[in-house]
Amino acid sequence: LTRYRELADELAALITHGTLQVGERVPSVRSLVQQYRVSPATAMRAYEILESKDLIEARPRSGYYVSRTAEPAHSRPPSKSTRVEVSDLVFDILEATRVRDVVPLGSAFPSPLLFPWAKLARFLGSSARHMDPWTTVQSLPPGSEELRRQIARRYLLSGASVRTDEVVITSGALEALNLALATVTRPGDVIAIESPTFYACLQAVELAGLKAVEIPTHPGSGVDIGALRDAIAKHNIRACWFMTTFQNPLGATMPEERKKELVALLAKHEIPLIEDDVYAELYFGERPRSAKSFDRKGLVLNCGSFSKCLAPGYRIGWVAAGRFAKDIQRRKIISTLATSVPVQEGIAAMLRHDGLDGHLTDLRQALRDQQQKTLISIKRHFPAGVRVVVPDGGYFLWLELPKSADAMEIYRAALAARISVAPGPMFSARRAFHNCLRINCGHPFTADIDRAIAKLGKICGTAGSTDPPRAS
Amino acid sequence: LTRYRELADELAALITHGTLQVGERVPSVRSLVQQYRVSPATAMRAYEILESKDLIEARPRSGYYVSRTAEPAHSRPPSKSTRVEVSDLVFDILEATRVRDVVPLGSAFPSPLLFPWAKLARFLGSSARHMDPWTTVQSLPPGSEELRRQIARRYLLSGASVRTDEVVITSGALEALNLALATVTRPGDVIAIESPTFYACLQAVELAGLKAVEIPTHPGSGVDIGALRDAIAKHNIRACWFMTTFQNPLGATMPEERKKELVALLAKHEIPLIEDDVYAELYFGERPRSAKSFDRKGLVLNCGSFSKCLAPGYRIGWVAAGRFAKDIQRRKIISTLATSVPVQEGIAAMLRHDGLDGHLTDLRQALRDQQQKTLISIKRHFPAGVRVVVPDGGYFLWLELPKSADAMEIYRAALAARISVAPGPMFSARRAFHNCLRINCGHPFTADIDRAIAKLGKICGTAGSTDPPRAS
Repeated sequence: LTRYRELADELAALITHGTLQVGERVPSVRSLVQQYRVSPATAMRAYEILESKDLIEARPRSGYYVSRTAEPAHSRPPSKSTRVEVSDLVFDILEATRVRDVVPLGSAFPSPLLFPWAKLARFLGSSARHMDPWTTVQSLPPGSEELRRQIARRYLLSGASVRTDEVVITSGALEALNLALATVTRPGDVIAIESPTFYACLQAVELAGLKAVEIPTHPGSGVDIGALRDAIAKHNIRACWFMTTFQNPLGATMPEERKKELVALLAKHEIPLIEDDVYAELYFGERPRSAKSFDRKGLVLNCGSFSKCLAPGYRIGWVAAGRFAKDIQRRKIISTLATSVPVQEGIAAMLRHDGLDGHLTDLRQALRDQQQKTLISIKRHFPAGVRVVVPDGGYFLWLELPKSADAMEIYRAALAARISVAPGPMFSARRAFHNCLRINCGHPFTADIDRAIAKLGKICGTAGSTDPPRAS
Repeated sequence: LTRYRELADELAALITHGTLQVGERVPSVRSLVQQYRVSPATAMRAYEILESKDLIEARPRSGYYVSRTAEPAHSRPPSKSTRVEVSDLVFDILEATRVRDVVPLGSAFPSPLLFPWAKLARFLGSSARHMDPWTTVQSLPPGSEELRRQIARRYLLSGASVRTDEVVITSGALEALNLALATVTRPGDVIAIESPTFYACLQAVELAGLKAVEIPTHPGSGVDIGALRDAIAKHNIRACWFMTTFQNPLGATMPEERKKELVALLAKHEIPLIEDDVYAELYFGERPRSAKSFDRKGLVLNCGSFSKCLAPGYRIGWVAAGRFAKDIQRRKIISTLATSVPVQEGIAAMLRHDGLDGHLTDLRQALRDQQQKTLISIKRHFPAGVRVVVPDGGYFLWLELPKSADAMEIYRAALAARISVAPGPMFSARRAFHNCLRINCGHPFTADIDRAIAKLGKICGTAGSTDPPRAS
């Protein structure tokens, strides 16, 4: 390949892939000569080729521009074999829920329409404007002192005495969970997880090179303590990762007494508990206590986030890490260094000056309302024999279909009808729960969603199930 | 311990550690009863104890407040043994450079006073105000389409044709580097790194469970290609991590021809190159080309960031990942999920509407000026026999003292005099470079800095060196 053809090919790719867009100026011949270290003749010939292909056009005394007839392609770069053994299923479903014309019943997120964006933007803008530049150095991990203090104060509301210096700010709860896991384990260790469990937990276990023991988890009352006790006797369990309140996907909340029992059992064996507590604020009735509130040994690493209750996409999470705070801080420094400082400052200012409670009252009411309407719609449209667990908070419903149902088939049929769902096998390393679905009710209930549920009900009545569909 | 004493102790700790601050209201007795599930009598008795210790005071018809006489303590939580084998030295030095009354000659950061904060705040606030809420879902990895496109376009300036879909946004360059490393290696693999090398690279190698072969790197011309060739013949090298331009700590830049040779050598062996390119924009003369600009096989993962050239603390970095883009995107999703969306949008808007070049011209000029003044001061105040490499960009100077000098001793003596420096052994797994120092010249040159350099020169003339100090 001659240099000018090669150069023409490179630039053509930038145009067809949209890096250089229709109507935009392309680099001048002079700058090509300088930056690409080619001769003027080579640069000119490359542009002649692009012109002959109608990808660029010369404008007198102004230079070359991407021509209006240039057609963008939309391919993806070639992918090498994926080293992490993560399930393609999880990524497919994540992709599907990002497409806006797919009804997001499979989404893991609440609707972005439920959050106080204008107020957040005001606090963010104002904090950035008034930020002392040195804050960017001082808010390195563990993070903004004021934000950590505000978070520590909020723990008081759930009966947990958390000190400011125990809190490490992270880029969302997922970073907190991964840091916690990597800090309390070594590759090859065994940890206990729920079954079914949030798929990100399965991925984190793979990422950290761990083995997992799945502990049966009940829709009503969460982790089975007896089974956990047996597992501890049998395996050398180095940590537990449990979502004790509004568990994803079940919606289960461990009763207080059971949380207390869990903390006591783990304290006896000196086993750290990674408590994924991201739905803590989304209760409909009384505020649930966390396992952390019973912790007296600093063994519970309670991971939280503003992504589900205040500011999705701002990426502010934290871990109240007990005796592991210093280790987590160091691990954060060497993995992602710091969390965005103006965003930390903005959220801290909002917590300090405005509080969350006004917004949270509205949010809880909206979620409860959506849950009710979704339940009514499911009752109306789904075949007989579907069991639904109704949680006291959060925005998930766990549907158990008749044993003969095939959630993967339902998932595929639904996606073809532009509806996403989260099939049970996503939530298990053993691909169990083949007859279960997780339904997101975190979106304002509309006629579109009602229609999607009706459609889904019909699919459930036929796909892989031998039960006849209920007449509607 | 009775429950009320326990509760009093917990609340006392929150007060003495500053989570509840002087003058702030403490939870009401009623809320203690509700949240901590204690009897009113227990709550009352706990507060009586706190009152008797003068930690809180009752205000009529208003509740209890932290009293003005409550004295804050400033301790740290107990630390468990650190699993990651990171050097305490690195963390000690990081801590020292965060203290504001220590002259930051050991800092890794440029002065925060050199950046366009007002303009950044305006774009951040405006982007947050106008952000479509659905953007928070759509800007999941690989990240904001517009930001990725702007970054891809900027690569044209250095002669590299990078497509938008090759760019993955990360929370700073360090996340990009760690994701890149974890994506192209498995634990136990051998990688090639520079010697001396940036300490974060050493930490990343430990974090990923890798072995490193150190390749001699010259202050003038960077990585020794011959030595690398030998290393490839001898070891099964799975990746290289090099900083090809303004290397930290040396300041070395590989000449273009050598970068080309490097890329060709690695292409022949199908070895990925992780190119840490965070100082690319900080050149004083001609814009250097990157190794990435010679890459035809998608083997170079060029990692960049706005933290050194535009927006420290905003935490926006990226990797132009070649054939590994899809894998990196997935690994990002399972490790930290996403990068702050309003910040991505704000930086994209600034790139689109304002560009960087006005600011960068000022920044480069300031850094060059500071470098000159620092060099003059060093020449004046340091003992004879000190060799300084003068790089064409960045903000580090690498000082080679006489062989008899002990950088660790100098580091300790300087810190006692409220001056931080980065001693040579920080930059080597084998603790080599015992007679070298890295000096930060990224801060506006002031009389304080001049005095600090004079003091440091005096320390270098005495600490561990047998050479007599130069008369000044």
